[in-house]
Amino acid sequence: MFILSSPSGAGKTTIAKKLLAQVDGLGMSVSVTTRPIRPGEVEGKDYHFVDRDTFSQMVENGEFLEWAEVFGNCYGTPKAQIKAGLKAGQDYLFDIDWQGTQQLYQRMEVDVVRVFLLPPSIAELEDRLRSRGTDSDEVIRSRMDRAKAEISHWDGYDYVVINDDIESCYDSVLHILEAERLRRARQTGLVDFTRKLMA
Amino acid sequence: MFILSSPSGAGKTTIAKKLLAQVDGLGMSVSVTTRPIRPGEVEGKDYHFVDRDTFSQMVENGEFLEWAEVFGNCYGTPKAQIKAGLKAGQDYLFDIDWQGTQQLYQRMEVDVVRVFLLPPSIAELEDRLRSRGTDSDEVIRSRMDRAKAEISHWDGYDYVVINDDIESCYDSVLHILEAERLRRARQTGLVDFTRKLMA
Repeated sequence: MFILSSPSGAGKTTIAKKLLAQVDGLGMSVSVTTRPIRPGEVEGKDYHFVDRDTFSQMVENGEFLEWAEVFGNCYGTPKAQIKAGLKAGQDYLFDIDWQGTQQLYQRMEVDVVRVFLLPPSIAELEDRLRSRGTDSDEVIRSRMDRAKAEISHWDGYDYVVINDDIESCYDSVLHILEAERLRRARQTGLVDFTRKLMA
Repeated sequence: MFILSSPSGAGKTTIAKKLLAQVDGLGMSVSVTTRPIRPGEVEGKDYHFVDRDTFSQMVENGEFLEWAEVFGNCYGTPKAQIKAGLKAGQDYLFDIDWQGTQQLYQRMEVDVVRVFLLPPSIAELEDRLRSRGTDSDEVIRSRMDRAKAEISHWDGYDYVVINDDIESCYDSVLHILEAERLRRARQTGLVDFTRKLMA
Protein backbone atom coordinates (compact mmCIF):
# COMPACT_ATOMS: atom_id res chain seq x y z
CA MET A 1 0.00 0.00 0.00
CA PHE A 2 1.39 3.28 -1.16
CA ILE A 3 0.38 6.17 1.07
CA LEU A 4 0.61 9.74 -0.11
CA SER A 5 0.01 12.47 2.45
CA SER A 6 0.55 16.20 2.38
CA PRO A 7 -0.94 19.39 3.65
CA SER A 8 -3.70 20.56 1.36
CA GLY A 9 -2.21 22.62 -1.47
CA ALA A 10 1.06 20.67 -1.72
CA GLY A 11 0.05 18.85 -4.90
CA LYS A 12 -1.08 15.49 -3.57
CA THR A 13 -4.24 15.25 -5.66
CA THR A 14 -2.47 16.04 -8.94
CA ILE A 15 0.28 13.51 -8.25
CA ALA A 16 -2.19 10.84 -7.14
CA LYS A 17 -4.34 11.21 -10.26
CA LYS A 18 -1.32 10.98 -12.55
CA LEU A 19 0.03 7.91 -10.75
CA LEU A 20 -3.32 6.14 -11.02
CA ALA A 21 -3.54 6.97 -14.73
CA GLN A 22 0.01 5.94 -15.61
CA VAL A 23 1.17 3.15 -13.32
CA ASP A 24 0.17 -0.45 -14.02
CA GLY A 25 -1.10 -2.47 -11.09
CA LEU A 26 -1.85 0.58 -8.97
CA GLY A 27 -5.43 1.35 -8.01
CA MET A 28 -7.49 2.90 -5.30
CA SER A 29 -9.53 0.90 -2.89
CA VAL A 30 -13.23 1.61 -2.69
CA SER A 31 -13.96 3.10 0.71
CA VAL A 32 -17.02 2.54 2.85
CA THR A 33 -18.89 5.70 3.88
CA THR A 34 -21.96 6.81 5.79
CA ARG A 35 -22.19 9.90 3.57
CA PRO A 36 -25.38 10.05 1.49
CA ILE A 37 -24.88 9.08 -2.14
CA ARG A 38 -24.64 12.08 -4.51
CA PRO A 39 -26.12 12.33 -8.00
CA GLY A 40 -23.86 10.56 -10.48
CA GLU A 41 -22.12 8.42 -7.86
CA VAL A 42 -22.23 4.67 -8.23
CA GLU A 43 -22.47 2.26 -5.29
CA GLY A 44 -19.42 -0.02 -5.25
CA LYS A 45 -17.46 2.24 -7.62
CA ASP A 46 -17.20 5.61 -5.87
CA TYR A 47 -17.95 4.25 -2.42
CA HIS A 48 -19.76 1.52 -0.63
CA PHE A 49 -22.63 3.46 0.94
CA VAL A 50 -23.82 2.14 4.28
CA ASP A 51 -25.85 3.49 7.18
CA ARG A 52 -24.32 4.44 10.48
CA ASP A 53 -25.34 1.25 12.29
CA THR A 54 -23.71 -0.91 9.63
CA PHE A 55 -20.57 1.24 9.77
CA SER A 56 -20.38 0.99 13.58
CA GLN A 57 -20.83 -2.77 13.34
CA MET A 58 -17.98 -2.96 10.82
CA VAL A 59 -15.75 -0.93 13.14
CA GLU A 60 -16.59 -3.27 16.01
CA ASN A 61 -15.89 -6.32 13.86
CA GLY A 62 -12.45 -4.90 13.00
CA GLU A 63 -13.31 -4.80 9.31
CA PHE A 64 -11.42 -1.56 8.65
CA LEU A 65 -7.71 -0.98 8.20
CA GLU A 66 -8.36 2.63 9.13
CA TRP A 67 -11.39 4.81 9.48
CA ALA A 68 -12.14 8.41 10.34
CA GLU A 69 -15.03 10.79 10.83
CA VAL A 70 -14.86 13.94 8.71
CA PHE A 71 -17.54 16.64 8.92
CA GLY A 72 -19.98 14.24 10.52
CA ASN A 73 -19.55 11.43 7.99
CA CYS A 74 -17.56 8.26 8.48
CA TYR A 75 -15.10 6.85 5.95
CA GLY A 76 -13.31 3.53 6.24
CA THR A 77 -10.91 1.32 4.28
CA PRO A 78 -12.20 -2.27 4.18
CA LYS A 79 -9.55 -4.75 5.21
CA ALA A 80 -10.66 -7.84 3.29
CA GLN A 81 -10.69 -6.11 -0.09
CA ILE A 82 -7.17 -4.67 0.34
CA LYS A 83 -5.65 -7.86 1.67
CA ALA A 84 -7.04 -9.91 -1.20
CA GLY A 85 -5.82 -7.33 -3.74
CA LEU A 86 -2.31 -7.06 -2.28
CA LYS A 87 -2.03 -10.83 -2.25
CA ALA A 88 -2.92 -10.90 -5.93
CA GLY A 89 -0.13 -8.40 -6.69
CA GLN A 90 -2.29 -5.29 -6.82
CA ASP A 91 -0.85 -2.12 -5.26
CA TYR A 92 -3.12 0.47 -3.69
CA LEU A 93 -2.69 4.20 -3.54
CA PHE A 94 -3.97 5.95 -0.43
CA ASP A 95 -4.50 9.63 -0.24
CA ILE A 96 -4.95 10.03 3.52
CA ASP A 97 -3.79 12.27 6.33
CA TRP A 98 -1.26 11.51 9.03
CA GLN A 99 -3.83 9.99 11.37
CA GLY A 100 -5.03 7.47 8.81
CA THR A 101 -1.41 6.73 7.96
CA GLN A 102 -0.62 6.07 11.58
CA GLN A 103 -3.62 3.76 11.99
CA LEU A 104 -2.59 1.80 8.91
CA TYR A 105 1.03 1.60 9.89
CA GLN A 106 0.57 0.69 13.52
CA ARG A 107 -1.67 -2.26 12.80
CA MET A 108 1.13 -3.69 10.68
CA GLU A 109 -1.27 -6.06 8.99
CA VAL A 110 -0.32 -4.85 5.55
CA ASP A 111 2.82 -3.79 3.74
CA VAL A 112 2.93 0.01 3.72
CA VAL A 113 5.14 2.65 2.07
CA ARG A 114 4.56 6.17 3.34
CA VAL A 115 5.37 9.26 1.29
CA PHE A 116 4.91 12.83 2.48
CA LEU A 117 4.85 15.83 0.16
CA LEU A 118 5.94 19.24 1.39
CA PRO A 119 5.42 22.63 -0.24
CA PRO A 120 8.63 24.50 -1.12
CA SER A 121 7.67 27.35 1.20
CA ILE A 122 4.76 28.50 3.30
CA ALA A 123 4.23 31.51 1.00
CA GLU A 124 3.92 29.16 -1.97
CA LEU A 125 1.40 27.03 -0.08
CA GLU A 126 -0.70 30.08 0.73
CA ASP A 127 -0.55 31.19 -2.92
CA ARG A 128 -1.79 27.79 -4.04
CA LEU A 129 -4.64 27.79 -1.54
CA ARG A 130 -5.64 31.33 -2.53
CA SER A 131 -5.49 30.60 -6.24
CA ARG A 132 -8.10 27.89 -5.83
CA GLY A 133 -10.93 30.35 -5.70
CA THR A 134 -12.81 32.80 -3.65
CA ASP A 135 -12.27 31.62 -0.10
CA SER A 136 -12.39 34.29 2.58
CA ASP A 137 -9.25 35.27 4.47
CA GLU A 138 -10.65 33.49 7.47
CA VAL A 139 -11.09 30.21 5.60
CA ILE A 140 -7.57 30.56 4.15
CA ARG A 141 -6.20 31.17 7.63
CA SER A 142 -7.87 28.10 9.04
CA ARG A 143 -6.62 26.06 6.07
CA MET A 144 -3.09 27.32 6.69
CA ASP A 145 -3.35 26.34 10.34
CA ARG A 146 -4.51 22.90 9.37
CA ALA A 147 -1.69 22.64 6.80
CA LYS A 148 0.91 23.51 9.42
CA ALA A 149 -0.54 20.95 11.80
CA GLU A 150 -0.32 18.32 9.05
CA ILE A 151 3.28 19.34 8.21
CA SER A 152 4.27 18.74 11.82
CA HIS A 153 3.81 14.99 11.19
CA TRP A 154 6.39 14.79 8.38
CA ASP A 155 8.60 12.59 10.54
CA GLY A 156 6.12 9.72 10.54
CA TYR A 157 6.83 8.94 6.88
CA ASP A 158 9.38 6.80 5.04
CA TYR A 159 10.00 9.34 2.30
CA VAL A 160 9.70 13.10 2.07
CA VAL A 161 9.50 14.89 -1.27
CA ILE A 162 9.54 18.67 -1.59
CA ASN A 163 7.20 19.73 -4.37
CA ASP A 164 8.82 22.77 -5.93
CA ASP A 165 8.09 21.51 -9.42
CA ILE A 166 5.12 19.26 -10.09
CA GLU A 167 6.84 17.28 -12.86
CA SER A 168 9.99 16.48 -10.92
CA CYS A 169 7.91 15.82 -7.81
CA TYR A 170 5.84 13.33 -9.81
CA ASP A 171 9.00 11.66 -11.12
CA SER A 172 10.36 11.36 -7.59
CA VAL A 173 7.18 9.77 -6.26
CA LEU A 174 7.05 7.43 -9.26
CA HIS A 175 10.66 6.37 -8.71
CA ILE A 176 9.94 5.68 -5.05
CA LEU A 177 7.07 3.42 -6.09
CA GLU A 178 9.18 1.66 -8.74
CA ALA A 179 12.08 1.19 -6.34
CA GLU A 180 9.87 -0.14 -3.57
CA ARG A 181 8.48 -2.72 -5.97
CA LEU A 182 12.06 -3.93 -6.52
CA ARG A 183 12.63 -4.62 -2.84
CA ARG A 184 13.71 -8.18 -2.44
CA ALA A 185 11.12 -8.91 0.20
CA ARG A 186 8.30 -7.86 -2.14
CA GLN A 187 9.36 -9.97 -5.12
CA THR A 188 7.67 -13.19 -4.23
CA GLY A 189 8.85 -14.99 -7.35
CA LEU A 190 12.56 -14.68 -6.55
CA VAL A 191 12.89 -17.90 -4.58
CA ASP A 192 11.80 -19.95 -7.59
CA PHE A 193 13.64 -17.74 -10.06
CA THR A 194 17.01 -17.99 -8.34
CA ARG A 195 16.51 -21.71 -7.72
CA LYS A 196 16.18 -22.16 -11.48
CA LEU A 197 19.30 -20.02 -12.10
CA MET A 198 21.35 -22.20 -9.77
CA ALA A 199 19.95 -25.53 -10.99
CA MET B 1 26.85 3.77 0.46
CA PHE B 2 25.31 2.19 -2.56
CA ILE B 3 26.39 -1.40 -3.06
CA LEU B 4 25.98 -3.15 -6.39
CA SER B 5 26.68 -6.87 -6.52
CA SER B 6 26.04 -9.50 -9.13
CA PRO B 7 27.52 -12.62 -10.56
CA SER B 8 30.09 -11.80 -13.21
CA GLY B 9 28.34 -11.32 -16.55
CA ALA B 10 25.13 -9.85 -15.15
CA GLY B 11 25.95 -6.29 -16.20
CA LYS B 12 27.27 -4.78 -12.99
CA THR B 13 30.28 -3.06 -14.52
CA THR B 14 28.27 -1.39 -17.28
CA ILE B 15 25.63 -0.16 -14.84
CA ALA B 16 28.25 1.05 -12.34
CA LYS B 17 30.16 3.04 -14.98
CA LYS B 18 27.01 4.72 -16.24
CA LEU B 19 25.87 5.62 -12.72
CA LEU B 20 29.24 7.16 -11.91
CA ALA B 21 29.18 9.17 -15.13
CA GLN B 22 25.61 10.42 -14.80
CA VAL B 23 24.69 10.78 -11.13
CA ASP B 24 25.75 13.86 -9.19
CA GLY B 25 27.27 13.30 -5.79
CA LEU B 26 28.09 9.66 -6.47
CA GLY B 27 31.69 8.53 -6.54
CA MET B 28 33.90 5.60 -5.83
CA SER B 29 36.16 5.37 -2.86
CA VAL B 30 39.85 4.84 -3.46
CA SER B 31 40.77 1.41 -2.13
CA VAL B 32 43.98 0.41 -0.42
CA THR B 33 45.82 -2.51 -2.01
CA THR B 34 48.99 -4.56 -1.63
CA ARG B 35 48.97 -5.21 -5.39
CA PRO B 36 52.03 -3.78 -7.18
CA ILE B 37 51.32 -0.58 -9.07
CA ARG B 38 50.83 -1.07 -12.82
CA PRO B 39 52.07 1.22 -15.58
CA GLY B 40 49.69 4.16 -15.98
CA GLU B 41 48.19 3.82 -12.51
CA VAL B 42 48.38 6.77 -10.15
CA GLU B 43 48.87 6.45 -6.38
CA GLY B 44 45.88 7.97 -4.58
CA LYS B 45 43.73 7.93 -7.69
CA ASP B 46 43.50 4.31 -8.79
CA TYR B 47 44.50 2.89 -5.43
CA HIS B 48 46.51 3.64 -2.36
CA PHE B 49 49.41 1.24 -2.82
CA VAL B 50 50.86 -0.11 0.43
CA ASP B 51 53.04 -3.06 1.41
CA ARG B 52 51.71 -6.09 3.20
CA ASP B 53 52.93 -5.03 6.66
CA THR B 54 51.20 -1.68 6.37
CA PHE B 55 48.02 -3.40 5.20
CA SER B 56 48.09 -5.89 8.09
CA GLN B 57 48.62 -3.02 10.50
CA MET B 58 45.61 -1.20 9.05
CA VAL B 59 43.48 -4.35 9.43
CA GLU B 60 44.59 -4.65 13.05
CA ASN B 61 43.82 -0.99 13.70
CA GLY B 62 40.31 -1.49 12.33
CA GLU B 63 40.91 1.03 9.56
CA PHE B 64 38.89 -0.88 6.96
CA LEU B 65 35.14 -1.07 6.47
CA GLU B 66 35.76 -4.28 4.56
CA TRP B 67 38.76 -6.00 3.09
CA ALA B 68 39.46 -9.16 1.13
CA GLU B 69 42.30 -11.12 -0.36
CA VAL B 70 41.92 -11.91 -4.06
CA PHE B 71 44.53 -13.91 -5.99
CA GLY B 72 47.13 -13.24 -3.31
CA ASN B 73 46.61 -9.48 -3.13
CA CYS B 74 44.73 -7.60 -0.44
CA TYR B 75 42.17 -4.89 -1.09
CA GLY B 76 40.48 -2.76 1.55
CA THR B 77 38.03 0.12 1.86
CA PRO B 78 39.39 2.79 4.21
CA LYS B 79 36.88 3.76 6.86
CA ALA B 80 37.94 7.35 7.58
CA GLN B 81 37.69 8.48 3.96
CA ILE B 82 34.18 7.06 3.49
CA LYS B 83 32.84 8.36 6.77
CA ALA B 84 34.07 11.88 6.07
CA GLY B 85 32.62 11.78 2.54
CA LEU B 86 29.21 10.47 3.64
CA LYS B 87 29.03 13.12 6.32
CA ALA B 88 29.68 15.76 3.67
CA GLY B 89 26.79 14.44 1.57
CA GLN B 90 28.84 12.37 -0.85
CA ASP B 91 27.42 8.97 -1.86
CA TYR B 92 29.70 6.08 -2.71
CA LEU B 93 29.18 3.30 -5.18
CA PHE B 94 30.63 -0.08 -4.28
CA ASP B 95 31.07 -2.83 -6.75
CA ILE B 96 31.77 -5.73 -4.37
CA ASP B 97 30.74 -9.32 -3.87
CA TRP B 98 28.42 -10.75 -1.24
CA GLN B 99 31.20 -11.22 1.31
CA GLY B 100 32.29 -7.59 1.17
CA THR B 101 28.63 -6.58 1.34
CA GLN B 102 28.11 -8.67 4.43
CA GLN B 103 31.19 -7.22 6.13
CA LEU B 104 30.01 -3.68 5.38
CA TYR B 105 26.48 -4.33 6.47
CA GLN B 106 27.21 -6.21 9.64
CA ARG B 107 29.48 -3.53 11.05
CA MET B 108 26.57 -1.11 10.73
CA GLU B 109 28.91 1.84 11.02
CA VAL B 110 27.70 3.36 7.79
CA ASP B 111 24.42 3.77 5.97
CA VAL B 112 24.20 1.06 3.31
CA VAL B 113 21.81 0.28 0.43
CA ARG B 114 22.37 -3.12 -1.17
CA VAL B 115 21.33 -3.92 -4.74
CA PHE B 116 21.78 -7.29 -6.41
CA LEU B 117 21.60 -7.81 -10.16
CA LEU B 118 20.51 -11.14 -11.59
CA PRO B 119 20.82 -12.41 -15.15
CA PRO B 120 17.50 -13.22 -16.87
CA SER B 121 18.54 -16.86 -17.28
CA ILE B 122 21.54 -19.08 -16.79
CA ALA B 123 21.83 -19.59 -20.56
CA GLU B 124 22.01 -15.82 -21.06
CA LEU B 125 24.72 -15.55 -18.40
CA GLU B 126 26.76 -18.25 -20.10
CA ASP B 127 26.34 -16.50 -23.46
CA ARG B 128 27.61 -13.25 -21.97
CA LEU B 129 30.62 -14.92 -20.38
CA ARG B 130 31.43 -16.73 -23.64
CA SER B 131 31.06 -13.62 -25.76
CA ARG B 132 33.76 -11.90 -23.75
CA GLY B 133 36.53 -13.69 -25.59
CA THR B 134 38.43 -16.85 -25.97
CA ASP B 135 38.20 -18.49 -22.56
CA SER B 136 38.40 -22.25 -22.53
CA ASP B 137 35.38 -24.36 -21.64
CA GLU B 138 37.03 -25.14 -18.37
CA VAL B 139 37.45 -21.47 -17.45
CA ILE B 140 33.85 -20.80 -18.46
CA ARG B 141 32.70 -23.71 -16.33
CA SER B 142 34.55 -22.44 -13.29
CA ARG B 143 33.14 -18.94 -13.89
CA MET B 144 29.64 -20.37 -14.09
CA ASP B 145 30.18 -22.21 -10.83
CA ARG B 146 31.38 -19.04 -9.19
CA ALA B 147 28.40 -17.14 -10.65
CA LYS B 148 25.97 -19.67 -9.22
CA ALA B 149 27.65 -19.45 -5.83
CA GLU B 150 27.30 -15.65 -5.93
CA ILE B 151 23.64 -15.90 -6.99
CA SER B 152 22.92 -18.03 -3.94
CA HIS B 153 23.43 -14.91 -1.80
CA TRP B 154 20.68 -12.87 -3.47
CA ASP B 155 18.67 -12.87 -0.27
CA GLY B 156 21.21 -10.73 1.58
CA TYR B 157 20.27 -7.64 -0.42
CA ASP B 158 17.67 -4.91 -0.06
CA TYR B 159 16.78 -4.81 -3.76
CA VAL B 160 16.97 -7.34 -6.55
CA VAL B 161 16.89 -6.28 -10.20
CA ILE B 162 16.72 -8.76 -13.07
CA ASN B 163 18.84 -7.50 -15.94
CA ASP B 164 17.03 -8.62 -19.07
CA ASP B 165 17.55 -5.27 -20.73
CA ILE B 166 20.53 -3.10 -19.84
CA GLU B 167 18.66 0.20 -20.31
CA SER B 168 15.69 -0.67 -18.15
CA CYS B 169 17.99 -2.32 -15.61
CA TYR B 170 19.98 0.92 -15.44
CA ASP B 171 16.79 2.93 -14.98
CA SER B 172 15.69 0.63 -12.16
CA VAL B 173 19.00 0.94 -10.33
CA LEU B 174 18.99 4.71 -10.84
CA HIS B 175 15.46 4.97 -9.46
CA ILE B 176 16.45 2.93 -6.43
CA LEU B 177 19.31 5.36 -5.79
CA GLU B 178 17.06 8.40 -6.29
CA ALA B 179 14.35 6.98 -4.05
CA GLU B 180 16.78 6.05 -1.30
CA ARG B 181 18.07 9.62 -1.31
CA LEU B 182 14.51 10.78 -0.61
CA ARG B 183 14.20 8.68 2.54
CA ARG B 184 13.25 10.91 5.39
CA ALA B 185 16.04 9.66 7.59
CA ARG B 186 18.68 10.63 4.99
CA GLN B 187 17.47 14.17 4.41
CA THR B 188 19.31 15.90 7.18
CA GLY B 189 17.96 19.33 6.29
CA LEU B 190 14.31 18.46 6.91
CA VAL B 191 14.22 19.38 10.58
CA ASP B 192 15.15 22.97 9.79
CA PHE B 193 13.08 23.07 6.61
CA THR B 194 9.85 21.94 8.27
CA ARG B 195 10.50 24.18 11.25
CA LYS B 196 10.57 27.13 8.88
CA LEU B 197 7.36 25.97 7.16
CA MET B 198 5.55 25.84 10.48
CA ALA B 199 6.94 29.11 11.84
